[in-house]
Amino acid sequence: MYDIITIGGGPAALSAAITARARNKTVAVISADYRMSGLYKAPEILNYPGLPAISGSELLERMIDHARAMGAELLEGRTVSVIPGETFFVSYGQEFAEGKSLILSTGIVQTNTFPGEAELLGRGVSYCATCDGMLYRGKDVCVVCAAPDAESEADYLSSIGCRVTKLKTNRVTVNGSAKVESVTADGQEIPCDAVFILRRSIAPATLLPGLELAGGHIAVNARMETSIPGVFAAGDCTGQPYQISKAAGEGQVAALTAVEYLSR
Amino acid sequence: MYDIITIGGGPAALSAAITARARNKTVAVISADYRMSGLYKAPEILNYPGLPAISGSELLERMIDHARAMGAELLEGRTVSVIPGETFFVSYGQEFAEGKSLILSTGIVQTNTFPGEAELLGRGVSYCATCDGMLYRGKDVCVVCAAPDAESEADYLSSIGCRVTKLKTNRVTVNGSAKVESVTADGQEIPCDAVFILRRSIAPATLLPGLELAGGHIAVNARMETSIPGVFAAGDCTGQPYQISKAAGEGQVAALTAVEYLSR
Repeated sequence: MYDIITIGGGPAALSAAITARARNKTVAVISADYRMSGLYKAPEILNYPGLPAISGSELLERMIDHARAMGAELLEGRTVSVIPGETFFVSYGQEFAEGKSLILSTGIVQTNTFPGEAELLGRGVSYCATCDGMLYRGKDVCVVCAAPDAESEADYLSSIGCRVTKLKTNRVTVNGSAKVESVTADGQEIPCDAVFILRRSIAPATLLPGLELAGGHIAVNARMETSIPGVFAAGDCTGQPYQISKAAGEGQVAALTAVEYLSR
Repeated sequence: MYDIITIGGGPAALSAAITARARNKTVAVISADYRMSGLYKAPEILNYPGLPAISGSELLERMIDHARAMGAELLEGRTVSVIPGETFFVSYGQEFAEGKSLILSTGIVQTNTFPGEAELLGRGVSYCATCDGMLYRGKDVCVVCAAPDAESEADYLSSIGCRVTKLKTNRVTVNGSAKVESVTADGQEIPCDAVFILRRSIAPATLLPGLELAGGHIAVNARMETSIPGVFAAGDCTGQPYQISKAAGEGQVAALTAVEYLSR
């Protein structure tokens, strides 16, 4: 049981983890492989004060080392679902973690879902190959590869015996009434029993139904509180500008508000 | 004429300057001697992401070097007054600078004024020894030393021929009707013609009449806009938590909003 779990592992999450550890709270940072992030690939960051003209990968690795040295636990895996309640159960990859509070730091929000996606979620639509793949052994599945590591998940599905069609388009419709029957990709209909939609991250509002949005971003106040008690947000997911120092500052504020929440 | 002037030279101001320079805007950072700041004296900062366990002086000097390398101009002096209009005239030390926009980053706001101070401002109450000292040659003046460099300003007043009483208390009342007649310090009344109140910084609402406050801090929205067009704010002056990363993040946001304002 962690005091604080961050969903996401960029500057907002790492800053939150560092400040929360400085306040002696236990913290887990849950993130997909950080080398897949946009920041990691940025050749040069000019405006992170104190570290002039640094590469994205060096800055991110410095922040990761800092968080780890402070005692934050870094857990690797894509967050698949969150079960809210008195505490929060976060399922990531094939593991899960429990936290007393959450800091959402999921990066730029992917607001657009495909037609049919929300309606058929759990009835053939899945966000997690390793979680649900075994249900479709010997069957036809489509994989929408919208995350950099989606290929390897598609290969995993093949390896356990799914008949996989990989799709690399954003023009996707999921068809079916009680369950998924086919996918239309770039105008072509492909019959299938399931579709795995593998984005970099799941839209926070999909993870946490009832989470209030504002203009497509997570709605927060100046203390980084969301509409759900115990859930805070920081970084790109709260809105523009998409900048590292802004994200780190918000992570710090979110952590301090979470610490206050935990003391109640 | 600068595109942006920051009043204050801490992390919020330096971050704003760095980001504004990255957007190719001209920037002046106006600040009293940075070695007088609380941050400079902090032995260790644990939670500025990417620079673990750094001393306050090293962090501040890294940020100053960064801002200077990006082309920001660092101007030393205590800001004494601001004349708003289509552009802003900022008087600091014995100099002045003109800017198309302002970023207030004055640190923790000193909200309390002494009884009689506001009423007699300009009629014997002064915030600037070098500006107004000559008016009181051969006369009795009190100096309230509430800033670390106030002593040297008091010495300056002595050197030009004022009869100076230095006060090092916070229990001060300024007495007089049309002009300053005396000061009561710790219950003792001292007749004088002027009182120089030398704080680390002037309260922003005193600098800019009409500036809206909220709970003793400068009121800002998420874009760091204040109630005055062209005036933005960032850092401790906008409210708690008083933290470096929060200040730097707000400075970055203020700069980007100022850049947008300048393009209109």
